[in-house]
Amino acid sequence: MKVGFIGLGIMGKPMAKNLLNAGHELVVLDRSDASAELTELGASSASSAAEMAAQVELVITMVPDSPQVREVALGADGLIEGAREGLVYVDMSSISPITSREVAAALAAKGVKMLDAPVSGGEPKAIDGTLAVMVGGDEQTLAKVEGVLDVMAGSVTYVGPIGAGNIAKLANQVVVALNIAAVAEAFTLAQKAGVDPAMVLAAIRGGLAGSAVLDAKGPMMLDGNITPGFRINLHIKDLNNALATSHEVGVPLPLTAAVREMMTALAVDGYDTSDHSALVRHYEKLANTQVRRDETIS
Amino acid sequence: MKVGFIGLGIMGKPMAKNLLNAGHELVVLDRSDASAELTELGASSASSAAEMAAQVELVITMVPDSPQVREVALGADGLIEGAREGLVYVDMSSISPITSREVAAALAAKGVKMLDAPVSGGEPKAIDGTLAVMVGGDEQTLAKVEGVLDVMAGSVTYVGPIGAGNIAKLANQVVVALNIAAVAEAFTLAQKAGVDPAMVLAAIRGGLAGSAVLDAKGPMMLDGNITPGFRINLHIKDLNNALATSHEVGVPLPLTAAVREMMTALAVDGYDTSDHSALVRHYEKLANTQVRRDETIS
Repeated sequence: MKVGFIGLGIMGKPMAKNLLNAGHELVVLDRSDASAELTELGASSASSAAEMAAQVELVITMVPDSPQVREVALGADGLIEGAREGLVYVDMSSISPITSREVAAALAAKGVKMLDAPVSGGEPKAIDGTLAVMVGGDEQTLAKVEGVLDVMAGSVTYVGPIGAGNIAKLANQVVVALNIAAVAEAFTLAQKAGVDPAMVLAAIRGGLAGSAVLDAKGPMMLDGNITPGFRINLHIKDLNNALATSHEVGVPLPLTAAVREMMTALAVDGYDTSDHSALVRHYEKLANTQVRRDETIS
Repeated sequence: MKVGFIGLGIMGKPMAKNLLNAGHELVVLDRSDASAELTELGASSASSAAEMAAQVELVITMVPDSPQVREVALGADGLIEGAREGLVYVDMSSISPITSREVAAALAAKGVKMLDAPVSGGEPKAIDGTLAVMVGGDEQTLAKVEGVLDVMAGSVTYVGPIGAGNIAKLANQVVVALNIAAVAEAFTLAQKAGVDPAMVLAAIRGGLAGSAVLDAKGPMMLDGNITPGFRINLHIKDLNNALATSHEVGVPLPLTAAVREMMTALAVDGYDTSDHSALVRHYEKLANTQVRRDETIS
């Protein structure tokens, strides 16, 4: 399939490479000079989203947030200006589902079918082509492009109408944020009450307190390792989108709001590009203690 | 070994039966008439903790909370009155580690060695003899009685000095409470934003949002099943102990405090003996919606 790919950042570049390697004809566009690396591998480049839209069957975007999606899709020289009946647009960015729905409605007027298909798994799974993709939109449209998504994905899960992909992704980010806070509260309590948090981790991980966060982020907290992983500033963006969405539909999320404020305090404190598990440092500061230690604990 | 067992409730009774079945000589004591069932199986009964302490090598208690432990150990006709050098006392209740330390100190004056060894796993694992036991105290004392604990346990994890068992257990209960809240916030958001929470569960459970709580309690929330499991009023007790301990050692636990208040609201609303996953009903009420549905979702 002839595919256009916009947004060749940490996630987008390896995703685009996997499409090329799978034999798809690729047209790329990026604000930076990241396109060169892809054109050397055989992609062509477009000068605008409008020009790209006019020549491909499918446009994929992987950009930072809602404003960038809106601009690429509906702005000057945006997709909408080169769009034609039958074009499929898959936005794989993690954005507000409210924006997904607005952009989809605007493009539908030109005959463009849009899916929102955010991913989880981060850079390693983008490179391996094993991302978890959550898809919103209509199922016939997904059927048309699922073969392309499969190249980048370990799993493609259809979750509902347009916007549902991002709602599922926001639900995911809410759970991850609160599960990180849970481990941070437990470790800080244990540490200051005189019990090694590494012992606590070992004692509780096999039971109802067990989680992917405890296994992946618990040892990072104990090691003092704040290398991302997934950055605090991106998690703040996701929690902002979760809260904006929840408030629009009338759902108070008191704990999500509290963690958003904690992460904001950390960003102010210089941890904006640290791994989200650096949330434990907020608790360390509150309790005037230090959970982390010098040696790695298995 | 000649073992005394005090507290033959939902947990204590099957634990005591497993000790009998393993061939230990058992002396039992309970406020209710639950002792009869054990004496029919071959146990003898004591009329007081003092009388029991005078005739066994090891006393185990499994009672509701700190005041009951204090009363059994240090009250009128308590352990301390029948205690002698070399007696080992293992409290397997989930109580405040502050109480564990105080009781241990009082008993140490009489030559009694105490361990705090709370369990997780609930009634099914008490029956199967596969509880997860977290032990605080000195390791030589644990070595003396570990064979007895093994009869009731799938795992026995030494976590530190006296009180450490309950600190680890409280850390466990903090994580479980916040992980339940995480799923409740995510499901309520998804539901009211128009996405089936069952789809969200399927989409996110394999990634960083995955947890034992999501797998065990997520389907209960979707089914509207509030059969315990683990009761709200017991989880409130644990969070009260976690907060009392955290405040004594100078650790603010803002999210634990928030969930304690939510569970208190639920208890007032009649959910005190419901499963702790009924926390989702607090969010349903806040958001005027209903996450649960009529059919079971796998």
